[in-house]
Amino acid sequence: MIRRLDHVGVAVRKASQRLPFYRDLLGLPLAKTEEVPSEQVRITILGEGPGRVELLEPTAEDSPVGRFLRERGEGIHHLCFLVDSLEATCERLQASGYRLAGGIRAGSEGTLIAFLHPKDVGGVLIELREVKGVQP
Amino acid sequence: MIRRLDHVGVAVRKASQRLPFYRDLLGLPLAKTEEVPSEQVRITILGEGPGRVELLEPTAEDSPVGRFLRERGEGIHHLCFLVDSLEATCERLQASGYRLAGGIRAGSEGTLIAFLHPKDVGGVLIELREVKGVQP
Repeated sequence: MIRRLDHVGVAVRKASQRLPFYRDLLGLPLAKTEEVPSEQVRITILGEGPGRVELLEPTAEDSPVGRFLRERGEGIHHLCFLVDSLEATCERLQASGYRLAGGIRAGSEGTLIAFLHPKDVGGVLIELREVKGVQP
Repeated sequence: MIRRLDHVGVAVRKASQRLPFYRDLLGLPLAKTEEVPSEQVRITILGEGPGRVELLEPTAEDSPVGRFLRERGEGIHHLCFLVDSLEATCERLQASGYRLAGGIRAGSEGTLIAFLHPKDVGGVLIELREVKGVQP
């Protein structure tokens, strides 16, 4: 079962260019930065708990976020929802005709993640993130 | 001061086409629908508290969401953050060179809202929403 929105991913060319807005003017606390090799991305996490903003800076041009920037420029990249069983959720979604964009893989903080194809969800790239024991 | 993410606005042609995904498969509770005449939009609110998803269905073709759909198709439209004083926040942002897209106006649930120009914020349309007495 899906529990709640986890974070919003925002594609940026340089996170340092956007920190003056999100951290200093919006006042969101800078939680940490982390590199996710599987996605070739460096993430800057702003805020805590549900509704965090994650700035996504590509570490390679030919990466999912690198291609997004080249094709569409900076902007909102995806919405991530927490689930308690990623495998069961993906099976249920696939049974209803939703396609995964790539398979289940390692995301930030050692969690398992998967993406749904945006063409199946009205142009919205949806990330699902498994966090064991999360409360609704 | 900004407090936290309030909701994510998603532009849709027909909310009824997306409810099977967000409500039935993701399991987000359908809170309510509301028409916002100032924005010529009908919103379908899914979830409660911070991190809600709001499906935005235009009530006129020549409206902000109607133009978004025509130019870019369905997709994530904006991020909304709660503030405790919209006027003071807008003054502070404008003093730092951020432009308002339109002025301060009435939003959903009788609140005051304003939008920042996405060109100033790395392609992200930011809504600010004043809720008196909100806790961080």
